[in-house]
Amino acid sequence: MSISATDLISVTDLGEGVLRLELQDPSTRNSLSMAMLDLLAVKLEEVAANSQCKVVLLSAAGPVFCAGHNLKEVQGNLGDQAAQLALFNKCSQVMQQLVHLPQPVIASVQGVATAAGCQLVASCDLAVAEESARFATPGVNIGLFCSTPMVALTRNVSRKAAMEMLLTGEMISAARALEIGLINRVATEGQQDEVALELARLIASKSAKTLAIGKEAFYKQLEMPLAEAYDYTSEVMAENLTSLDAREGISAFVEKRKPQWKNA
Amino acid sequence: MSISATDLISVTDLGEGVLRLELQDPSTRNSLSMAMLDLLAVKLEEVAANSQCKVVLLSAAGPVFCAGHNLKEVQGNLGDQAAQLALFNKCSQVMQQLVHLPQPVIASVQGVATAAGCQLVASCDLAVAEESARFATPGVNIGLFCSTPMVALTRNVSRKAAMEMLLTGEMISAARALEIGLINRVATEGQQDEVALELARLIASKSAKTLAIGKEAFYKQLEMPLAEAYDYTSEVMAENLTSLDAREGISAFVEKRKPQWKNA
Amino acid sequence: MSISATDLISVTDLGEGVLRLELQDPSTRNSLSMAMLDLLAVKLEEVAANSQCKVVLLSAAGPVFCAGHNLKEVQGNLGDQAAQLALFNKCSQVMQQLVHLPQPVIASVQGVATAAGCQLVASCDLAVAEESARFATPGVNIGLFCSTPMVALTRNVSRKAAMEMLLTGEMISAARALEIGLINRVATEGQQDEVALELARLIASKSAKTLAIGKEAFYKQLEMPLAEAYDYTSEVMAENLTSLDAREGISAFVEKRKPQWKNA
Repeated sequence: MSISATDLISVTDLGEGVLRLELQDPSTRNSLSMAMLDLLAVKLEEVAANSQCKVVLLSAAGPVFCAGHNLKEVQGNLGDQAAQLALFNKCSQVMQQLVHLPQPVIASVQGVATAAGCQLVASCDLAVAEESARFATPGVNIGLFCSTPMVALTRNVSRKAAMEMLLTGEMISAARALEIGLINRVATEGQQDEVALELARLIASKSAKTLAIGKEAFYKQLEMPLAEAYDYTSEVMAENLTSLDAREGISAFVEKRKPQWKNA
Repeated sequence: MSISATDLISVTDLGEGVLRLELQDPSTRNSLSMAMLDLLAVKLEEVAANSQCKVVLLSAAGPVFCAGHNLKEVQGNLGDQAAQLALFNKCSQVMQQLVHLPQPVIASVQGVATAAGCQLVASCDLAVAEESARFATPGVNIGLFCSTPMVALTRNVSRKAAMEMLLTGEMISAARALEIGLINRVATEGQQDEVALELARLIASKSAKTLAIGKEAFYKQLEMPLAEAYDYTSEVMAENLTSLDAREGISAFVEKRKPQWKNA
Repeated sequence: MSISATDLISVTDLGEGVLRLELQDPSTRNSLSMAMLDLLAVKLEEVAANSQCKVVLLSAAGPVFCAGHNLKEVQGNLGDQAAQLALFNKCSQVMQQLVHLPQPVIASVQGVATAAGCQLVASCDLAVAEESARFATPGVNIGLFCSTPMVALTRNVSRKAAMEMLLTGEMISAARALEIGLINRVATEGQQDEVALELARLIASKSAKTLAIGKEAFYKQLEMPLAEAYDYTSEVMAENLTSLDAREGISAFVEKRKPQWKNA
């Protein structure tokens, strides 16, 4: 019995402003099929509009986080270059949705994250993985270089580290992933979700308004020359100061009390 | 008794071409008030024009290196967005003065360096910190995201490491700061100044002319595509070779003797 | 007896698609003289056109990998700025040839790699060094800042790590080079060639067509903003899928057999 597309992703309110999005297709190792990507795009749009959600925890069901595209689907469309381009464009759009989402996204990774699955981790703002988790961009092993995954990968790790993963297709350990900057924390086996949730709750204790201002500015200024980046972020800060939460936060700080966010 | 603005920064000749600029406002944890920033801008202009100065050691008096902006001053101007923008613009200008200063600048960090104080460290060419020093971009805790500090931070450390600091507002240790590239050396407790001075003296033993040529080219070429960067730096090197010090340096090398710099 | 220019570089077929290019001028510590650079440019053009070559192993004869430009040659042309510019332009062109070469290039480093020699390592896609190998950009010691080497260096390592090497001119160890991302592997003393060859053979077991597609896209997308990089690489992947090797690779994967590359 095939799973209905709407069952491919579960959304769970974990409380305190943290929402879990979970890929639910373990039988295909949570492959990023067109159906999965379409649904992920919809879910991320919903999250963006959800004022109750302050932080997203992105996880995946089963032993494998995500093994990338569905190769059987790719194979079925080999004669149709337009369909392939549509798939890569959709995938690229979803990865950019993560970057443009107002809420921070934390990946919680078990098992392996490969190809577009590794890209998914790289595209999140933060990532936690269990000790035994492994990462690879193994497209080179099937004659299809991980060209879109490398966009995210090379914006996370140094050139030679990225090139080694891309040219060899070999797995790297969670410890190595931490070392090169692909993830933020290595958790004890099976504890990645607890560690990710703890991080999510810490961040969700901040003002959602402030997080959204900061996350947007983070990625924008990265693509600017230094002088332009400073002009832009100076305006962002002056604007940020007009928010209720900055006023409350500064008052609370001066008065040595806990701020009460309005998330506005 | 309030300190006169002109006492907020001390300038000390440490000999051998090394000049110390020291923030002298420990009662506000060396906060980057408008007065402090104005004076820092003036002092950096003077340093730029000072042909006796080959390297700057930037330090701060008291137990804390720098805790960022003066929040009471910020709070006092909450109704005046133009004043706030002026403050962030001035701060951004001073940070860029450090980048554009002909002389290399080495931060010597004790205690904590937070928000614009962390940005100050990131904006220096090199940085040394004592073992117990800690760094943070904690604006998110008061509803005011560290948007201008992140311009410098993200140009020093990898994306996920920067994002973690910015979203959580948590302190990182000197050891972690070294690991992610925010600083160059961790010194034994209280020895950061000695280590920074040793580094400063080593660099001050080079030609001031050559240091200025190289530092300017360093930041310029970073913002260019590869081909343009090579065209530009090839011209920089050919021009560098016309300097007295390159001629002296090459002669000294071939003749196996110590070069005598004219700093020209 | 002077060595003929055509003997300055040896080309050896190491089998299985791996070609060794070896600098053969140990008496000048494999200096990148104009003659050496001219020949390297020619050899790299030949390699680019050589459909039998899948991976290049770049090594150097004698105890020193490469000590950079030939300072006696530079000194001899001190009166001729046009000649100096021609040398730096040629050197920059060769470094970019490595980046644009369709085949991955792995540096195998012993002894020291300094100035343009360090740049050579940074310009290769991957690098392996023996434990005792050391790296430096010591131009500052002779009054001639390593401005062109820093183009490659700063695209490999973080700013403060690069700045420290450039301002101090000091050697860093192989272990430190690994830590900052300048190299991929530290090999047991004298074993750098075996380790590099093993890596080369692993990569040479992939499709040459796929490697060429990926390497070209790697460097191109790095210079693009995120959205543009995704548009570009999505097209690269769709195009990649039309290659014989992607079709073979995907079929082999689905059929659980080893792919037979046509390198097309």
